[in-house]
Amino acid sequence: MLVVMSQQATAEEVDAVVAAIEGKGYTARPIPGGERVAIGVLHNKGAVDASHFLGLPGVKEVIPVTRPYKLVSREFQLEDTVIQVGDVFIGDGDLTLIAGPCAVESEAQCLKIAQIVKRAGAHLFRGGAFKPRTSRYSFQGLGEKGLKILAKVREATGLPVVTEALDTDTFGLVEDYTDVIQIGARNMQNFSLLRRAGRSSKPVLVKRGLAATIEEWLMAAEYILESGNTQVILCERGVRTFAHHSRNTLDLSAVAAVCKESHLPVIVDPSHAAGRRDQVIPLSRAGVAVGAHGLMVEVHYNPEEALSDGAQSLYPEQFEMLCREIQAVFDAFQPSGPVRQKKT
Amino acid sequence: MLVVMSQQATAEEVDAVVAAIEGKGYTARPIPGGERVAIGVLHNKGAVDASHFLGLPGVKEVIPVTRPYKLVSREFQLEDTVIQVGDVFIGDGDLTLIAGPCAVESEAQCLKIAQIVKRAGAHLFRGGAFKPRTSRYSFQGLGEKGLKILAKVREATGLPVVTEALDTDTFGLVEDYTDVIQIGARNMQNFSLLRRAGRSSKPVLVKRGLAATIEEWLMAAEYILESGNTQVILCERGVRTFAHHSRNTLDLSAVAAVCKESHLPVIVDPSHAAGRRDQVIPLSRAGVAVGAHGLMVEVHYNPEEALSDGAQSLYPEQFEMLCREIQAVFDAFQPSGPVRQKKT
Amino acid sequence: MLVVMSQQATAEEVDAVVAAIEGKGYTARPIPGGERVAIGVLHNKGAVDASHFLGLPGVKEVIPVTRPYKLVSREFQLEDTVIQVGDVFIGDGDLTLIAGPCAVESEAQCLKIAQIVKRAGAHLFRGGAFKPRTSRYSFQGLGEKGLKILAKVREATGLPVVTEALDTDTFGLVEDYTDVIQIGARNMQNFSLLRRAGRSSKPVLVKRGLAATIEEWLMAAEYILESGNTQVILCERGVRTFAHHSRNTLDLSAVAAVCKESHLPVIVDPSHAAGRRDQVIPLSRAGVAVGAHGLMVEVHYNPEEALSDGAQSLYPEQFEMLCREIQAVFDAFQPSGPVRQKKT
Amino acid sequence: MLVVMSQQATAEEVDAVVAAIEGKGYTARPIPGGERVAIGVLHNKGAVDASHFLGLPGVKEVIPVTRPYKLVSREFQLEDTVIQVGDVFIGDGDLTLIAGPCAVESEAQCLKIAQIVKRAGAHLFRGGAFKPRTSRYSFQGLGEKGLKILAKVREATGLPVVTEALDTDTFGLVEDYTDVIQIGARNMQNFSLLRRAGRSSKPVLVKRGLAATIEEWLMAAEYILESGNTQVILCERGVRTFAHHSRNTLDLSAVAAVCKESHLPVIVDPSHAAGRRDQVIPLSRAGVAVGAHGLMVEVHYNPEEALSDGAQSLYPEQFEMLCREIQAVFDAFQPSGPVRQKKT
Repeated sequence: MLVVMSQQATAEEVDAVVAAIEGKGYTARPIPGGERVAIGVLHNKGAVDASHFLGLPGVKEVIPVTRPYKLVSREFQLEDTVIQVGDVFIGDGDLTLIAGPCAVESEAQCLKIAQIVKRAGAHLFRGGAFKPRTSRYSFQGLGEKGLKILAKVREATGLPVVTEALDTDTFGLVEDYTDVIQIGARNMQNFSLLRRAGRSSKPVLVKRGLAATIEEWLMAAEYILESGNTQVILCERGVRTFAHHSRNTLDLSAVAAVCKESHLPVIVDPSHAAGRRDQVIPLSRAGVAVGAHGLMVEVHYNPEEALSDGAQSLYPEQFEMLCREIQAVFDAFQPSGPVRQKKT
Repeated sequence: MLVVMSQQATAEEVDAVVAAIEGKGYTARPIPGGERVAIGVLHNKGAVDASHFLGLPGVKEVIPVTRPYKLVSREFQLEDTVIQVGDVFIGDGDLTLIAGPCAVESEAQCLKIAQIVKRAGAHLFRGGAFKPRTSRYSFQGLGEKGLKILAKVREATGLPVVTEALDTDTFGLVEDYTDVIQIGARNMQNFSLLRRAGRSSKPVLVKRGLAATIEEWLMAAEYILESGNTQVILCERGVRTFAHHSRNTLDLSAVAAVCKESHLPVIVDPSHAAGRRDQVIPLSRAGVAVGAHGLMVEVHYNPEEALSDGAQSLYPEQFEMLCREIQAVFDAFQPSGPVRQKKT
Repeated sequence: MLVVMSQQATAEEVDAVVAAIEGKGYTARPIPGGERVAIGVLHNKGAVDASHFLGLPGVKEVIPVTRPYKLVSREFQLEDTVIQVGDVFIGDGDLTLIAGPCAVESEAQCLKIAQIVKRAGAHLFRGGAFKPRTSRYSFQGLGEKGLKILAKVREATGLPVVTEALDTDTFGLVEDYTDVIQIGARNMQNFSLLRRAGRSSKPVLVKRGLAATIEEWLMAAEYILESGNTQVILCERGVRTFAHHSRNTLDLSAVAAVCKESHLPVIVDPSHAAGRRDQVIPLSRAGVAVGAHGLMVEVHYNPEEALSDGAQSLYPEQFEMLCREIQAVFDAFQPSGPVRQKKT
Repeated sequence: MLVVMSQQATAEEVDAVVAAIEGKGYTARPIPGGERVAIGVLHNKGAVDASHFLGLPGVKEVIPVTRPYKLVSREFQLEDTVIQVGDVFIGDGDLTLIAGPCAVESEAQCLKIAQIVKRAGAHLFRGGAFKPRTSRYSFQGLGEKGLKILAKVREATGLPVVTEALDTDTFGLVEDYTDVIQIGARNMQNFSLLRRAGRSSKPVLVKRGLAATIEEWLMAAEYILESGNTQVILCERGVRTFAHHSRNTLDLSAVAAVCKESHLPVIVDPSHAAGRRDQVIPLSRAGVAVGAHGLMVEVHYNPEEALSDGAQSLYPEQFEMLCREIQAVFDAFQPSGPVRQKKT
């Protein structure tokens, strides 16, 4: 941490800040500049709370230097984390495709969609049994009945399943049925839920919050790792900005930045980012091209009748086109040239 | 809802959309314009899901008209909701002041601050026992021990207390000890928690989410009302924008807009909006001047040593100045002229 | 500037960064911390370009310390700048009120509105002769004819006038007729226009850009001061965020921050921030309460027929109410107690 | 336009709105719904100003339906606009690559970089002679001397050149030397400059403003088309959001949306979006994959010494890698399969 003093700060004020820093058990190192003094805070373990110094007389600014997370950082673990789900690997250098309807509506619906997406090339099946809905009056999901349908889909198709856990009360139930547990964007800073996920033995997919910095996103993942579960997948799904041509603004530089900063795999959800079908394929290609480890896409054979988010669900033939295009894009820029196979 | 057709839409496409609308049980009313046709969707109860129509051929745009909430709206209840907490009223036309430390640190700390803020004019005491922290490594609150300290503060000072419930697991515990239950900004769309709050007999203070529209904020409150608890207070605490001179951007037009749209009382939290002490008093005056029903402010006698958010906590003498200034501002623009007393 | 090295940075990489810093003529001071090395850059005059060092091997981050502006800073001039326009002072501790229609439409319209706002208490008259319009097909202003009308208003009422200069081509014309030259939000980084304004002998009112940080806003003002004109007034008019209940989000903490950082006077434009009439009075009160030196408000006796921005223009009786309320708020929180008079 | 009435609106209020609409020469069509009345505004040519109706008693909301632009819309011209610059085509289905340094620094620098980027595959050369700089104290460009250097580059390499025109004063000078005239992000709503560009016979590249909606961006282009110049290229370069891991947030869904809405070609500038070298190649691949018609990329052989934006400039060998990767991505997802050649 660096404490920047005002140009008018007196020597006494500088001394008082030095004393405050040392009073906290840190080492203070004043750095006299041309126009003002700055004071380095050294020998701290982990991040120092800026508020201790921000209000002191003569202090102009306090600048953090140390990263506030540790276990998720490449400085802690240099090699990529690879997640295994059944026979599927996420983050191993190949592209992982998760697909399915927004919400589980019925067994017939899920089986039909699962067969469609499996045939087209998906590796995992997604579907919401517990749905977070902005409106109290929207369809809230089938609950446990939906989880049982997901289990049948896995049995029938061999596809591992991904579904969201909404709260600690139903976490155990979700955990019993699913292969990957999703923490939704609205729950990214639901710390009780993150800690519960950290005690799970199943991989956890953490969506980026609507207005989360990548630092906050990584700190959410840190909660899970710190509680003992290192199997975390990150998912970029767009952030809220002033723009309205898409429901959210897909932030692909975040994928590049997180891949550099963290060893955890990162996938992209173009469906929730776009909120409209016609942008899903272009954004999927872009997500693969930027270097994401996978995609999570919504598909429905009858989106007009879908109980949730139909407007962003692809028709089956669109999903097939998506699979062809993203595989081509993925193969194109991989240094190795020939198409590698998933380790299945 | 209004379905806007493309200029190139054919008569057949218009007919198909009309059929789709009527197939859902609504009434379709085509409105031929100069350049294109728009189709009104009538006789819906509550909001219609845009996704049913957005992907149909020839459809350019779908525009919602009906509000997605009901119970919180002034169209449902014209008169202001007034919340009673002990002898204090919130939303009755007077100004309610909630003050205290960010976190409960010890009994001595809380009693000392409570006496300071009571003497200066606060009506309720605030303090966090369960703290939502972005970093796993920050102080997480004293938990039940903190709740017991809050109960002692109430006993010693007569001030009702406000504290946050973080999850459904500890909600009952918080409910047992506190007078007003706070739902934090990060939990504004934790729907399980909102439903639990809806089954409480205690008033609930709902902070606006970091990137929540006022519609989403009101829909979060709607969850609580719909579950049976009509005692809801809204709290504006700043939203996330590109700006960095304050931690968040306090959105005071939201206070004006919500007061017009909803009958629920709205208070302002200048401390979390600013994130820095020197803006708290000006923003408090502004919050009162815009017409908020109250303020929630952080105070600490030794902010440098505070375990949480010290940089935004006012010194006792600053809080006294704040009380004088906001009361003067409040009195100044009230039509009634003379200073009215809280009904205590 | 502080160059933060990665934890894995080698001693050679640190040495190379030190050499690069010294190669630029600065002094490098390595600060070994517990986990990593940071290197202070000293003896620079003004801001150092981060890009020189950001790409070097082992560099994790580059953190600026020095402010990139100078003349506008309180570190350069501690005392408030007071602007004199005719007999009116802006920034002298009293409240300055600028009012008038969005656009100059006719002589009759302007004279009528000017008499209304003068009687209610306005100190300056505003009205656009050259209008920046997002749409090519909207009313673009009366041009020089409008400027002549403004001159007649001044003659008839004694009110100094404020109007916008859109480009360098018409700047001289505007300068000839007006008392204060406005630089609009869209032109905040039109550097040719800023430099031209810097060569004017008239005061310049610089609106904050739609997505400008306060640093960029101050740097825009710095262009004007550096070119020789120290008579600059800043105007906060809302920034663009995800929120839609108002046209822009009025950022009142920016007023507090800028008043601390700079000696220039700051006023608030609630009309463009709100974009809707019903929020203008509450936001005006808030703007005064936060400590702004004045307000700029749109008024029209027939806003339904206004050629520009009618929806945000106050009716005359609303403006009179605004004047009463803001004066009361202003008087309330001033330490001096009794109402001070403008030095007129 | 649709005027939505409040649930409580009386029949008299509805009648008054109908009368106001018809008083403007439009046709009013009331649409009684289950809960409230909405009134369609018909037979308007172009957009109607919402402000005429927003403030009337009983009006809850006014919703625009007609698009505010015309000439840039696919509803006006269905086929793609293809821009020819020398022998290069932009928007013809192939990928166009513009590359060069941020700023023209010297003839030797430009010639060297031009040879590098031409050899690697660039079709046009870029370089700033007049530089818009946030700080008055930053390098402002070589001016006409820089333009002459650009002309020499064209002569020496055959590459057409792109450079920015900052203001109407120097527009003619820029126009004389360059092949494509750039309007920068800060000038996207400099309407005088846009109108001047509309009178040019050279193609104009319009960068999206820092916080511009795609509607505003298209309306900026509309200014140019309406003034007579149909040769407009749009350039997405990132927008300002709360995120800091990149300088701006590249908004690739905007590319998809604009390509659907408008017939104008759209290119992507990954360098200004990222603001840091390590994200430029991934974002370039993503820009191509989303379907942009081209890229504009900054390259420098010695970015540490660059006078402007060095931190985001690619090294020559990185640019060569970029060319290989984007061509592979482009070829991969084109339906036609084999690599098509630029029509040169």
